[in-house]
Amino acid sequence: MKNIISIKDLSIAEIDEIMNGAEDMQKIIADPFLLKKINSPLKSKITLFFAESSTRTRGSFSEAARRLNFDCYEISGAEATSLSKKESLADTARMFASKNQGADIIAVRTNTEGAPRFIAEILDKMNCETAIINAGDGMNQHPTQALLDLFTISKYFGRKNIPDLTIGFMGDLAYSRVAHSDLLLFRLLGVKKIRLVSMPEAKIQAKYKDGFTEIIESEDIKTLSDCDVVIALRVQEERYTDPMKRETIKGKFRITPKNINLFKKEAIIMHPLPNPINTGEIDPCLYNYNKGPKVIVHEQAANGIPIRMQILNKSYQERQFKNNNQTASTVELEKIREESAKECLEKQRNKKMEFFRPINPETGTGIIIDHLPLGQGIIVQSLLEKTIGNDILPIHTIKGVLSGKYGKKDVIIIENNCLILENNDLLATISLKYGERTTLHLVKDKMYRKFKLNPPIIIKKLLACPNPNCVTNHEPESTTCFHNKFPDLGIVECAYCEREFPSEDLKPI
Amino acid sequence: MKNIISIKDLSIAEIDEIMNGAEDMQKIIADPFLLKKINSPLKSKITLFFAESSTRTRGSFSEAARRLNFDCYEISGAEATSLSKKESLADTARMFASKNQGADIIAVRTNTEGAPRFIAEILDKMNCETAIINAGDGMNQHPTQALLDLFTISKYFGRKNIPDLTIGFMGDLAYSRVAHSDLLLFRLLGVKKIRLVSMPEAKIQAKYKDGFTEIIESEDIKTLSDCDVVIALRVQEERYTDPMKRETIKGKFRITPKNINLFKKEAIIMHPLPNPINTGEIDPCLYNYNKGPKVIVHEQAANGIPIRMQILNKSYQERQFKNNNQTASTVELEKIREESAKECLEKQRNKKMEFFRPINPETGTGIIIDHLPLGQGIIVQSLLEKTIGNDILPIHTIKGVLSGKYGKKDVIIIENNCLILENNDLLATISLKYGERTTLHLVKDKMYRKFKLNPPIIIKKLLACPNPNCVTNHEPESTTCFHNKFPDLGIVECAYCEREFPSEDLKPI
Amino acid sequence: MKNIISIKDLSIAEIDEIMNGAEDMQKIIADPFLLKKINSPLKSKITLFFAESSTRTRGSFSEAARRLNFDCYEISGAEATSLSKKESLADTARMFASKNQGADIIAVRTNTEGAPRFIAEILDKMNCETAIINAGDGMNQHPTQALLDLFTISKYFGRKNIPDLTIGFMGDLAYSRVAHSDLLLFRLLGVKKIRLVSMPEAKIQAKYKDGFTEIIESEDIKTLSDCDVVIALRVQEERYTDPMKRETIKGKFRITPKNINLFKKEAIIMHPLPNPINTGEIDPCLYNYNKGPKVIVHEQAANGIPIRMQILNKSYQERQFKNNNQTASTVELEKIREESAKECLEKQRNKKMEFFRPINPETGTGIIIDHLPLGQGIIVQSLLEKTIGNDILPIHTIKGVLSGKYGKKDVIIIENNCLILENNDLLATISLKYGERTTLHLVKDKMYRKFKLNPPIIIKKLLACPNPNCVTNHEPESTTCFHNKFPDLGIVECAYCEREFPSEDLKPI
Repeated sequence: MKNIISIKDLSIAEIDEIMNGAEDMQKIIADPFLLKKINSPLKSKITLFFAESSTRTRGSFSEAARRLNFDCYEISGAEATSLSKKESLADTARMFASKNQGADIIAVRTNTEGAPRFIAEILDKMNCETAIINAGDGMNQHPTQALLDLFTISKYFGRKNIPDLTIGFMGDLAYSRVAHSDLLLFRLLGVKKIRLVSMPEAKIQAKYKDGFTEIIESEDIKTLSDCDVVIALRVQEERYTDPMKRETIKGKFRITPKNINLFKKEAIIMHPLPNPINTGEIDPCLYNYNKGPKVIVHEQAANGIPIRMQILNKSYQERQFKNNNQTASTVELEKIREESAKECLEKQRNKKMEFFRPINPETGTGIIIDHLPLGQGIIVQSLLEKTIGNDILPIHTIKGVLSGKYGKKDVIIIENNCLILENNDLLATISLKYGERTTLHLVKDKMYRKFKLNPPIIIKKLLACPNPNCVTNHEPESTTCFHNKFPDLGIVECAYCEREFPSEDLKPI
Repeated sequence: MKNIISIKDLSIAEIDEIMNGAEDMQKIIADPFLLKKINSPLKSKITLFFAESSTRTRGSFSEAARRLNFDCYEISGAEATSLSKKESLADTARMFASKNQGADIIAVRTNTEGAPRFIAEILDKMNCETAIINAGDGMNQHPTQALLDLFTISKYFGRKNIPDLTIGFMGDLAYSRVAHSDLLLFRLLGVKKIRLVSMPEAKIQAKYKDGFTEIIESEDIKTLSDCDVVIALRVQEERYTDPMKRETIKGKFRITPKNINLFKKEAIIMHPLPNPINTGEIDPCLYNYNKGPKVIVHEQAANGIPIRMQILNKSYQERQFKNNNQTASTVELEKIREESAKECLEKQRNKKMEFFRPINPETGTGIIIDHLPLGQGIIVQSLLEKTIGNDILPIHTIKGVLSGKYGKKDVIIIENNCLILENNDLLATISLKYGERTTLHLVKDKMYRKFKLNPPIIIKKLLACPNPNCVTNHEPESTTCFHNKFPDLGIVECAYCEREFPSEDLKPI
Repeated sequence: MKNIISIKDLSIAEIDEIMNGAEDMQKIIADPFLLKKINSPLKSKITLFFAESSTRTRGSFSEAARRLNFDCYEISGAEATSLSKKESLADTARMFASKNQGADIIAVRTNTEGAPRFIAEILDKMNCETAIINAGDGMNQHPTQALLDLFTISKYFGRKNIPDLTIGFMGDLAYSRVAHSDLLLFRLLGVKKIRLVSMPEAKIQAKYKDGFTEIIESEDIKTLSDCDVVIALRVQEERYTDPMKRETIKGKFRITPKNINLFKKEAIIMHPLPNPINTGEIDPCLYNYNKGPKVIVHEQAANGIPIRMQILNKSYQERQFKNNNQTASTVELEKIREESAKECLEKQRNKKMEFFRPINPETGTGIIIDHLPLGQGIIVQSLLEKTIGNDILPIHTIKGVLSGKYGKKDVIIIENNCLILENNDLLATISLKYGERTTLHLVKDKMYRKFKLNPPIIIKKLLACPNPNCVTNHEPESTTCFHNKFPDLGIVECAYCEREFPSEDLKPI
């Protein structure tokens, strides 16, 4: 694991390796002489590319780098923003990378979701060793925060007891990447009981609730009274464009001396900070509260150093690895009939059909795409042109053919060309959009074969991500990639922004 | 002396130690091999937290850190500003401190007065070693600048001759923290003769003029003609919200080839810089002037490096010390009568008074606060509730009792509870506000005791600082603290922003 | 060569020394152990003072410094801008320089043209070792970019073949300092064939086209079809204040898969980057194009590291040198007549002239400036007062004297004072403005001498640069300096902003 991009990519073994490594890093923090010296006159270099403002995470990475004797180069705030506006993220990443400005690791924070994954792929393609760490991408993920949260909880309850804990979240869950990464991590580790307290406007997306046995959502802070761990989260003001909505959400949930005793005595209360003055989720006078639940926000923050040291260390050690996320579209044609051209022709004649009219099955070659929904023929034709090219001629797109099963349908007949059978992107896209009904008929070598399309697993390149904030909608060098996550429900997940969509929302690019 | 927060905190011995240390640092600047190597793989770390813009002081600290082989982490400008807006200064300081992001020293510049002292206390409370250096807090202090000014002057006139010098200031004295720190320093060292030239709108506050034997104020630059040292100061444009006023002050006093000869031939002319183009206090063509008074602004600036090296060095060496500024409110009750309950009751009956009506002095316990000014009873009651709590019951607040001495007065009678005698914050506050007339009557253990309140020395927590820019009016974790500086005049000084106020201007929080 | 300010200052030998040094630096990049250790506990320090935004050049200098084990201090963006607004560039440079904040080298990027040269002179005057590197000054020069472009081209075609290459530029040539520095460099190295493709609004200035044998300008990208090297350049949007104009220029020339084949198969296509998303000059999908012309923008960018390492190395090695650009005004008086006062007087009497009326040539002393254009007398008089002072009296400025040759003329007669003969600035200025016709008559020691003024070579101090963006129009400590580049055409060049002007456009300061 060279890159740390999403909790989704991590295995339990890898997570435990990070936890154990962080323990070692704490020993180095206590005694800097334990740090192994690198035998090189040139230090390792981390570049912090923070196109969204941050001081806490940035300072934490910077301190982690210092403790490891890394060089740290920072581009952040307005500068970093104008940078990625003027040029593509891909070019920006290439600029920082080891072949250009020497970054062994780039920690990237961006408003665009999926950007860290995209950047990692770009650098992989140019055989660049530079590792990518996601320091927060829009509303998607903040994996290093989740790992330091786990590290903090483990210190109080023990790593092996994590699955038995009741963990509560409070605040703005809709837009909190911390909540998202935390929940993915807790689910992976087998946590069963989750409590979620937020205003209706700031409820968490359904996908993050999957996989927990006992999940309670409410607008009442009392729902957290049986939690071992309470994670309070800041209102992501910058993401609420409607100022009225913003104000109703701000300061709604706040832990104060008056209500702290509704929590369990042994509970720990966490917050990724900042905890804004006056409107913050935790009254600062509770920082030293010692009569019950412990507010451990500063201890939690301090744990960012060993966790990020270990992540830097690991990413640096494994930086020469190539990632394997260069997947191709995957789809399967299932043959459902095969017969000689002659035989096939015979049958049709018997049925008085003129199915292959433009193709003589005994002498010609070609493909028929049948049973496309009415009006979709020209869409598929344009996909054909994008993938195979403009010169597959002649091509017949027939709108409104009568179908016994579907009323009216569209049919495409391609003469003299079977290339689409080799284009997985195209087949996966047709399969996803129209797969259930569409059949392919291949005429070749005096044989007739009929196929149906099985549900695709990965669909690349031809369909746009509906999330306007997804990196694939911003970067000229990007291509889209979807996982057919719940084929039965027709739900796909974007491999970059990690959002889920009904497959009918995906439009051709 | 771990922290450098205000000239007020320094002794002459400490100042001379800094001066001598800076001499040693100059030797290290000349020959870097003289720097003692620290036997650690981890360098010391200074974090520059500059919430007000600065490049000169910041660059000077950064270079001083480099010369000492310290790591230097900088957060400044817009970033630092948004940082302290989003979260409290206390949380920001905790974030940077050694237990979190590893700062052994934080140099802090802020618009809020008293912030460095507040931050130092916060870190002390959490037993954090991090030292705090004030790099300028609003209009209050800029102690490192004053120390480098002294270092510069000493090079020309000798440290021991400082008390005999005539020192002049020119420019915007009302808002110049440099003038403030310089004057406190010169007074401490025994300087007698001071000249102050400024526009009427930009005159210095009275408190900085105290303690000098011969002080001349004017609006005429010629007043500086007998000065050995002239310190020119920039108009603090950013502090004048009225643009008209700003324009009238700008460029008013300017040393040019035409008027330089009014100064003494041996005089040195200083300026903390920047010296703005065209409106600056010194015409740049005088930088190389060699026919009389010497303009030594760049030499002065260069002296910032050894001074700040020594300050960093000293703060680092002494970082494990705890500060002792965790003072408590101090006030003294003076017993003015003591008698048995019986005896006391007897007397009252003779005088036909019914003073203790709710308390039976022979069987009960309680306190009477007597002679409060008319209408102040409910204010004292609310202070009681804030300090002792809501459950001291029954409590009688009686408005408009007839008094022989004061016409009408308020009286508070507290049954069954004597806790206020142990609450110094409360007693000091009552003493400051109403001490001269107020008496306390204690009934307990069948004894009656009467007390008057002597003037308090330190008053904490219950009164607000009238300076809206004082840190205590911004930070939720702060508490106020006043020194009863001139009890006879009724003048107190805020321990944070260091401003003086009539005690009647202090309102309960 | 301590400073790198303009390609104009470099010799071919120096350029080749930089190219060879950069080769050595590439070896150090490949194997950091090859870097020679400096025997000092204090690293060399480079300060990046970037008053114009930059991330690419800045990051490249920063990485070069790191690879050389230099300390790097950065002031850039808004901070750097406000810095140079509040105080003069001269004071800013002094602040950073080695005697103050320790910079051995300052790399400066500024909007003001000529600023790097001015700063270098200021530091030289104070005997400061700090070297100056121009990292881009307004529309003038970007010499380190030109050197890395040459390094890149040499790798493909060999240094010795440079003169035979056909090199094309495409994009915004009017405002591109890269184009300017590149062209000066290619001309120096003997390149003959240049192609220039731009919109009419963005054509390059005439001076950069001088000296090439075969230069073709057009608005058609096809003009580049015979180029070995194509250098695409970004539209300098920030320099077009008219938004309409900006839009017409943006995205006008763009190399895409559709038109790439019009270039030679062996051509290399370069771009200093950034290459803006969507409107950039090169479609990013060509970055990996391998069927013809090579787009080598990232390789080119990577070459910035060894080039800048070598420049830092060289500047540091030679930092103790003084520059020799402290030239004086140079002009020559040519004696065209000499005779005794008596003889001269005799002649005049014969001609019935009363030329010397105020001066008795047999007893007096003085100078007559004759044949000034009508109305210019008072201008010359004011120049006299500025240079010699107000007390050269008596002085006669006579307007509208009848002249045989020029109709009406102005004449100035100065009694008892010949100082102007020693003031080269004044003589050079008079010579430049009126030299062709003006004569000087000297009466002294009973002799009469008549002079004409030969064309000056350097003209300093008294004439303003017509470029409002030239550093000499902003800095109070600056003086102007012009080279009389083409005396026959009446064209002078400013030594700072390097722009050319007709000498009649130069007005007295």
